[in-house]
Amino acid sequence: MEKTINEQTTAQVMSPEQFLEHYQGHRRLTKKVIEAFPEREFFNYSIGGMRPFSEMVKELLAIAVPGLSEIVSGTASEFNEHRDYGSTKAEFLEKWDKDTEEINQLWSKLSIERFQEIIKLFGQYEGSVLSNLQYFVDNEIHHRAQGYVYLRALDIEPPFFYDRA
Amino acid sequence: MEKTINEQTTAQVMSPEQFLEHYQGHRRLTKKVIEAFPEREFFNYSIGGMRPFSEMVKELLAIAVPGLSEIVSGTASEFNEHRDYGSTKAEFLEKWDKDTEEINQLWSKLSIERFQEIIKLFGQYEGSVLSNLQYFVDNEIHHRAQGYVYLRALDIEPPFFYDRA
Repeated sequence: MEKTINEQTTAQVMSPEQFLEHYQGHRRLTKKVIEAFPEREFFNYSIGGMRPFSEMVKELLAIAVPGLSEIVSGTASEFNEHRDYGSTKAEFLEKWDKDTEEINQLWSKLSIERFQEIIKLFGQYEGSVLSNLQYFVDNEIHHRAQGYVYLRALDIEPPFFYDRA
Repeated sequence: MEKTINEQTTAQVMSPEQFLEHYQGHRRLTKKVIEAFPEREFFNYSIGGMRPFSEMVKELLAIAVPGLSEIVSGTASEFNEHRDYGSTKAEFLEKWDKDTEEINQLWSKLSIERFQEIIKLFGQYEGSVLSNLQYFVDNEIHHRAQGYVYLRALDIEPPFFYDRA
């Protein structure tokens, strides 16, 4: 029993393009959360000894483009969540937008065959390309949600969770 | 150009079984977060006017099995995040485990062709089966992360985010 590629490709749980759109939708929401923070609290506010939201965003930036670059190029890189992006929200947002474009470029070089390939990202995270990319998204949702609590504690209404426009 | 099904199915971004395992891995972590809460604070503690973690868990329980049942059966149901699961953590955990099994059963009835089908879940959430199921997982990560902040504020170490065992 054989089917053509066209017939078979209709039966995908998720296409690479859908995965990218899902990721970028979440990144658009994270951008709104950064924007919702007052300038000072973005860098200083925290609860329960956790990091300020700016430090969590540094982690997200350290994962997205560097991780995807490594996946696409196969060239190992070091994980560094302490890079300096400046001391203003505007600088973080500029970096965020730049990385949005870079992610789109890198993703377009990722063939569907790659997703099940086992890699060891940043020299330490072993798993499929799929599971690593899922971690990128899940980890962003996780830390952004912590930003939601910070905003609520600051009496600021966060964006709707389902707003990915 | 034709490929056999076997050749083509190797090039899946994510199989239905991988999606289920991803979801259940997150559900195992959420269970650990429920367990980490002190009995009283699970029902009463909150920050910034948000809901106690037990109320968020009620939302997760209202989505998972009822939503998946509707997707599998095609029979519309009402979204109800105020169901009574008892007044102890033990009762919530018992329900959680019961739903773990039900999710496995329901998922096994979901053919790969269904994921791209457009549905209107709970009579209001229109989108593909894929996007609805992604929402189940993302929403759980989101609210669980809020539980992480509650635990940190209570000076309790939450489980590692990557612990899905």
